[in-house]
Amino acid sequence: MTAIFQGRAYAMVTDHQDDASSCPWNEREAELLAITLELLQEHGYDRLSVEAVATKAKASKATMYRRWPSKADLVLAAFIQGTRDTAIPPRTGSLRGDLLEIGRATCQQSKEHMRTMRAVLNEMSHNPGLQDAMQEKFGLQRKMVIDGVLAAAVERGEIDASAINEEIFDLLPGYLVFRSLVSDRPPTEDTVRAVVDSVLLPSLMGARGR
Amino acid sequence: MTAIFQGRAYAMVTDHQDDASSCPWNEREAELLAITLELLQEHGYDRLSVEAVATKAKASKATMYRRWPSKADLVLAAFIQGTRDTAIPPRTGSLRGDLLEIGRATCQQSKEHMRTMRAVLNEMSHNPGLQDAMQEKFGLQRKMVIDGVLAAAVERGEIDASAINEEIFDLLPGYLVFRSLVSDRPPTEDTVRAVVDSVLLPSLMGARGR
Repeated sequence: MTAIFQGRAYAMVTDHQDDASSCPWNEREAELLAITLELLQEHGYDRLSVEAVATKAKASKATMYRRWPSKADLVLAAFIQGTRDTAIPPRTGSLRGDLLEIGRATCQQSKEHMRTMRAVLNEMSHNPGLQDAMQEKFGLQRKMVIDGVLAAAVERGEIDASAINEEIFDLLPGYLVFRSLVSDRPPTEDTVRAVVDSVLLPSLMGARGR
Repeated sequence: MTAIFQGRAYAMVTDHQDDASSCPWNEREAELLAITLELLQEHGYDRLSVEAVATKAKASKATMYRRWPSKADLVLAAFIQGTRDTAIPPRTGSLRGDLLEIGRATCQQSKEHMRTMRAVLNEMSHNPGLQDAMQEKFGLQRKMVIDGVLAAAVERGEIDASAINEEIFDLLPGYLVFRSLVSDRPPTEDTVRAVVDSVLLPSLMGARGR
């Protein structure tokens, strides 16, 4: 399926590295995406229809389909729009503070979008275009945020660059997403603190702490 | 939905603590579940029908429904049956060896069952009975395996019991499941070694290594 790569959805996916926080939608489009997200959270992906969004938004179906050629395009755009605030690296002034903030934002986002994320994951199995777009967006976004936080910590002299393990850079958000989507123990502040204080910081600072 | 708690599926879920490796199904039933898993991997949850399984297995639909009252029951039973081999704690003789083995088994299982797991997760959003049964089965099973491995390490004197953080006991399998199901970087042996060697072991052995 190539529809996902047509029009503005594609532009947004490829442009985010230049400015992750800019919004590529006008006010009316952002409103349509907000309504999509609302209906998604209420009914889930399978039960969502483009028609229902159009009806609730008092928009024509043609308007919807002109902007988002398929339900998958619409949901992807709504989901990315709804999680835009986690695309910017935190700047708390310390590595610990930044990691706790990434953890907090990941917990909140996963909790809010749990049903949508589960539905999008399932849809990804049948839809390689959606898979590519999701991964390009979220994989890169996650990497950019964490790279930014770690680079700032190196610059402040908190950690050595050699302590960073690229293979598992997304251990913190990845485990928190697992806890939200798969396990029956949704992550809490305690979970974030446990990963940061008893696992990540000892590992990142280990070389100099000993 | 309470059907999931009827019949043998429920017995299996609650009995696994006594003997996680015992098989509650007779030969014919195990064969039906194997065919279910095969069709699941081929077509995904949404496109699977109990009828298709019955046809391929040359069984009557009545036989199928007598044993598994719904598609959700059937899929849960097939999935649990297919992942039975990871229910036993490894005994390699060292904490590092045991953790690497848990990692290896988790990677293999997630890779093999990725589409099914995504579909079951999505279905869980609409089906609290399935959610409870999955969690009871997999949450407890994961905990049992890891508790066994850590207890053996304490007994061998490799780690102090106080180094174990209950809050994040499933960090290793959880992150690997995230990498399989959500990210676009399926976990490899390098991933397992990175988590075990640069994160878990330093954290678990930290108190004595310094």
